[in-house]
Amino acid sequence: MAQRLSEANARVCELVMPEHTNQYGTVFGGYLVALMDKAAYMVASRYARSMCVTAGMDRLDFTRPIRVGQVVEVIARLTYVSRTAMEIAVEARGEDVLEGTSVEACSGYFTFVAVDQQGHPVEVPQPELESEEEITRFWEGQKRHQERARTRGLRRSSIDSGSN
Amino acid sequence: MAQRLSEANARVCELVMPEHTNQYGTVFGGYLVALMDKAAYMVASRYARSMCVTAGMDRLDFTRPIRVGQVVEVIARLTYVSRTAMEIAVEARGEDVLEGTSVEACSGYFTFVAVDQQGHPVEVPQPELESEEEITRFWEGQKRHQERARTRGLRRSSIDSGSN
Amino acid sequence: MAQRLSEANARVCELVMPEHTNQYGTVFGGYLVALMDKAAYMVASRYARSMCVTAGMDRLDFTRPIRVGQVVEVIARLTYVSRTAMEIAVEARGEDVLEGTSVEACSGYFTFVAVDQQGHPVEVPQPELESEEEITRFWEGQKRHQERARTRGLRRSSIDSGSN
Amino acid sequence: MAQRLSEANARVCELVMPEHTNQYGTVFGGYLVALMDKAAYMVASRYARSMCVTAGMDRLDFTRPIRVGQVVEVIARLTYVSRTAMEIAVEARGEDVLEGTSVEACSGYFTFVAVDQQGHPVEVPQPELESEEEITRFWEGQKRHQERARTRGLRRSSIDSGSN
Amino acid sequence: MAQRLSEANARVCELVMPEHTNQYGTVFGGYLVALMDKAAYMVASRYARSMCVTAGMDRLDFTRPIRVGQVVEVIARLTYVSRTAMEIAVEARGEDVLEGTSVEACSGYFTFVAVDQQGHPVEVPQPELESEEEITRFWEGQKRHQERARTRGLRRSSIDSGSN
Amino acid sequence: MAQRLSEANARVCELVMPEHTNQYGTVFGGYLVALMDKAAYMVASRYARSMCVTAGMDRLDFTRPIRVGQVVEVIARLTYVSRTAMEIAVEARGEDVLEGTSVEACSGYFTFVAVDQQGHPVEVPQPELESEEEITRFWEGQKRHQERARTRGLRRSSIDSGSN
Repeated sequence: MAQRLSEANARVCELVMPEHTNQYGTVFGGYLVALMDKAAYMVASRYARSMCVTAGMDRLDFTRPIRVGQVVEVIARLTYVSRTAMEIAVEARGEDVLEGTSVEACSGYFTFVAVDQQGHPVEVPQPELESEEEITRFWEGQKRHQERARTRGLRRSSIDSGSN
Repeated sequence: MAQRLSEANARVCELVMPEHTNQYGTVFGGYLVALMDKAAYMVASRYARSMCVTAGMDRLDFTRPIRVGQVVEVIARLTYVSRTAMEIAVEARGEDVLEGTSVEACSGYFTFVAVDQQGHPVEVPQPELESEEEITRFWEGQKRHQERARTRGLRRSSIDSGSN
Repeated sequence: MAQRLSEANARVCELVMPEHTNQYGTVFGGYLVALMDKAAYMVASRYARSMCVTAGMDRLDFTRPIRVGQVVEVIARLTYVSRTAMEIAVEARGEDVLEGTSVEACSGYFTFVAVDQQGHPVEVPQPELESEEEITRFWEGQKRHQERARTRGLRRSSIDSGSN
Repeated sequence: MAQRLSEANARVCELVMPEHTNQYGTVFGGYLVALMDKAAYMVASRYARSMCVTAGMDRLDFTRPIRVGQVVEVIARLTYVSRTAMEIAVEARGEDVLEGTSVEACSGYFTFVAVDQQGHPVEVPQPELESEEEITRFWEGQKRHQERARTRGLRRSSIDSGSN
Repeated sequence: MAQRLSEANARVCELVMPEHTNQYGTVFGGYLVALMDKAAYMVASRYARSMCVTAGMDRLDFTRPIRVGQVVEVIARLTYVSRTAMEIAVEARGEDVLEGTSVEACSGYFTFVAVDQQGHPVEVPQPELESEEEITRFWEGQKRHQERARTRGLRRSSIDSGSN
Repeated sequence: MAQRLSEANARVCELVMPEHTNQYGTVFGGYLVALMDKAAYMVASRYARSMCVTAGMDRLDFTRPIRVGQVVEVIARLTYVSRTAMEIAVEARGEDVLEGTSVEACSGYFTFVAVDQQGHPVEVPQPELESEEEITRFWEGQKRHQERARTRGLRRSSIDSGSN
């Protein structure tokens, strides 16, 4: 069964409350990632129609701070689908509702895997690509997917030697 | 003023409660990153003795699930210090207290920048490296730091084209 | 200065976690209202570009339960604007991502007032209505607004006698 | 089996912490409703001795703001009981413990339905009315109950046309 | 200015949600103490009409578990007042709303001190004792207060030797 | 089977966020106890390798306030083991990361009991004491354990008369 990528897209808004910030009124990077992960989870489970778990996140840069009272808007879209994994591009923006402005705060790729109740990977539907843009993105996602698989072993041993 | 890297190290434990998990009893990847970010923040602000913000996270792989009732143990250590930035190696482990076992769930490098009240970068103390191991790690951290600076521009334009 | 109603619209998604539910896995009505209020707050403050406070909520019926693991989607749109108050139509839907279905769980009208730092009402921009549909909705909103003003005194005395 | 209404009454106090407020130190209307719903749930489930779900809330006006550091006091009392539904009058007050003053912030009627594990309505005990005051309130509650049933269809279609 | 003890009494109810319990559905002892501390804080600050901080808690025994879905009822009453400190007797009960039963889960004495913005102790009003029962309780509270002052030094040195 | 006490020791760090404090930026005593209880729970369940519940806490004094932005460090160590109960010495410290200072905020003994799924006490492993210091602490813990058993009846009746 083929399925459309765009139907899984998600847009999550969250009002930044004092509980999400440090004592200087700035949102913690980790809180922002937790929001991005939640939006990506929605996209992945909507598409796969099964339980999904985060397999990885590509490098994330936090380019601008978000402050208490602003609105965090997270936009998540499905870019690539392998047999059991999905790549989701996630962008977090900080909107100053009083100023009427919005800036990008962080963006990156998240990888989710569809799993069954025992946590074993299960197959996801194959995508029905709908436009040249989707095809280009899919192909770029596939390259990143292959690059991740290639470097996973290298990275791991480097971190291990670094943190021992 | 020179300062020791090892005095900033942090070890954070957290009991996984139902509120941290999805309905299958598995910890969300984003929650785990939030814990890792908090531990890295402690290390950075202990070393810099100033307010710090997350500048970025290197790629993170989630290798094993953590379940409700387990203890998450996060070990964060300072590996590299530039003029205003710090690289922290963070490892998250899931400990099954009933079984007496502990496995790595996720690990990676976090970058923090020391900032003043207006959010502008401020200088951090230069490190006093104490062992050959610390020197090696520092040198490897420096290489990663330079590589990140080099690829930041490349990555950004690639994500933008991917998410437009 | 005239302003468009539609630019303030908000769509908030939230993954229902165990912490939002009673011990039977059903979302509390009060939690759902808190989400709806947050979405309406975003719409009001985006439009007014000032601090806003909830002045009231019209009658709310909870027509269908939402369960843990589902996604709550809240759609809030601005329908009417008086001198200092805004009426926002809010609809909450429960989406079963595994089934691929979505049903309405609750809907109603929220009234917000723009206020200054001392909590005194301030004027909001007048709307630039863009379609016949918006004009009809605005006119209906105005009727509800007048009806609320008329019955406020009546209702209050009735509740007082009821709860004394 | 007949049962007394007054034995189900509940009084809930909550200290307003920074996490319950916006960046101006004012409690969110939605948070207040969540507290009121919780108090009403206690009353309903105490009386019905079964699981209960929120079926609806009558119009709520927020007459005065509550601030961080104040105590919210919620008083919930059972006013009317039909075959499977209960009407609960709920009043929320803000107490300034430093000043020694307390003012009403919001009040209204909540309707709960007793349900079984599958969510189907179940019968609740018939009430043993104990005073002329309780009888008057019960009769007024019955009128509101009938009015709600009558207008539910009307309201729904009006909201639908409003939010399409 | 003399003041009545009984006017400060507080009764806090809280519905036990999954987020307050371990994976076996039992409330954490520490969560229960946090609720008891909050109720005692209300009593202390109501009486002193100033900011108050917890100075100590006498030994607490947890005699019965409280489970998810039950209602925790915390009853706090002022028993003794010194120049700057207040002793509050706190009892936590677990109510099974479905069964209609309630049992004591924990009880003990909390000591609060009234402080100014810099955290320095300030005087509290002297109490106007209203009954023989209040006088007896006050006198017993005074004895406990003196006993605590006497043993504080002893206890501290014993813990230090124990935990070094 | 004999087991080492020291292998169960736990060290929990927590960054104090605005949500943990009152409106003056000071941590609630009850929140601190909840953290201490969590650390003690980890020690108890690590040692017993079974579910554990808090049976009691000895008198706790809060000697110094902890403020938002500081790090709470909780150190918990097992001091005594009876047939089904464990005594854990817990110390909470407040660390000012910007100043580089750390002071004790609270310390005391917690008692946990190992239980099965029905909540009935189960036996815990007997300890293998490893040093003269551990033996001294164990013997002192045993004396406190016996003293608690002796005074439990006395205390209870005194609290009852105090809070009736």
